[in-house]
This record gives sequence, C-alpha cells and structure tokens, in this order.
Amino acid sequence: MAYLDRVFHCLSDGTRRAVIAQLASGPASVGELARRHHMALPSFMKHIRVLEESEVVISRKTGRVRMCQLRPDALTAAQGWLERERRVWETRLDQLDSFIETLSEKENARGNR
Amino acid sequence: MAYLDRVFHCLSDGTRRAVIAQLASGPASVGELARRHHMALPSFMKHIRVLEESEVVISRKTGRVRMCQLRPDALTAAQGWLERERRVWETRLDQLDSFIETLSEKENARGNR
Repeated sequence: MAYLDRVFHCLSDGTRRAVIAQLASGPASVGELARRHHMALPSFMKHIRVLEESEVVISRKTGRVRMCQLRPDALTAAQGWLERERRVWETRLDQLDSFIETLSEKENARGNR
Repeated sequence: MAYLDRVFHCLSDGTRRAVIAQLASGPASVGELARRHHMALPSFMKHIRVLEESEVVISRKTGRVRMCQLRPDALTAAQGWLERERRVWETRLDQLDSFIETLSEKENARGNR
C-alpha cells in the first residue's frame, strides 16, 4: 500500500481520528488512550498498530508503559494532497465563472446593437 | 459509516485519488475515466460507486453516457479536519518551544549569578 493510501485509511476511522486529536495536544500512554475510548486493550491495540503502520504515530515502551506521540509532519502529505486538488478545482470554477461572464457580456452587447 | 469515515476511505486508494484529480479539472464520462486508468469497466465501476457513496462525486446518465463530476465542497470537510488538528499540534509545539526557551533562559540566569 502506498504511503498516502495508508494515511487516508488510517484517517477513515472515528476512533483513530479521536486518538490523533488527543495526541495533537501531547503524548499519552496506550492505557490512557484506551480508557478515554472505553475500549478493551486488545481491540484498541489494533488501532494503534494501524496508526503506527501509516506512520502517523510513533510509540515507545518505557518500562511497563507504552507512550504514543504524533510524528512530526504526520498529516502534512494528506493535507498537501487535498490542498493541491482543491486549488485545481477552484481555479477551474473561477475560469468557468469568468467564461460565463464573458458570454453574458457578449450577449448583452449583441442585445444593445 | 460516518461521513468523514467514508470520505477518508474514498481517498485511501490511488485510482480513486487519480479520478478526483482528473475531475478537479472538469467533468468526464465513466468511459473516459476508465480508459485513462486502463481498467475494465466493471472493476472501475466499483471505484465510481465508492466515490459516489462517499459523496465526493456525482454521476448522471445522459442517453448512453454516464457523466461524473466532483461535488462542490467534496473535500472541504476532510481538509477542515486536517487543518484543525494540525493547528492544535502546531500550537502545542510552539508552546513547547517557548517553554524550552524559558527554561534555558532561567538556566543561563542561574549560570550568570
């Protein structure tokens, strides 16, 4: 799976998005995250694995506690892709607007002749 | 599946992202899109269905041709979510920076005493 495929797949689940939102305000342990989501640890660990495989989250075990944090630039590529496409799309709509404007000006000019 | 789940799932596939990129520069028929991706029509139609179910693309049949176009605001919610989280994350990093700066200033002041 390509990098962007993995990142967007990772974002396609509400629990994983909530974990990202929580980690955006600071690192947390897997236990803390699981409690917040009222989820049994084994099911929750599956989400953590997806978050790690998509390179959005890094975790590290210190003693008996596994700490998670967002990777710097975790969301940059996904955001960049969306911004680029939206720019293309908006440029096209602007061109369409000015085309329609030109058409109606020509129409008016013809009507005034 | 929640709306954002569906949008991000839709974005998690390279073919679907390429279709979105193509439609950002203007509407196209399903046939044109399938040819561009060298894909058999039935497999390609599965992607079109996902794009429609996630409310990213609208298609309409005119005679024998099915035309596709991006929905206005197709990507707004996904982009909005990413921007919001990134802002939280960057604010946190800025706060961390100024905290470290304050710490090292205190450290220097102590060294100079």
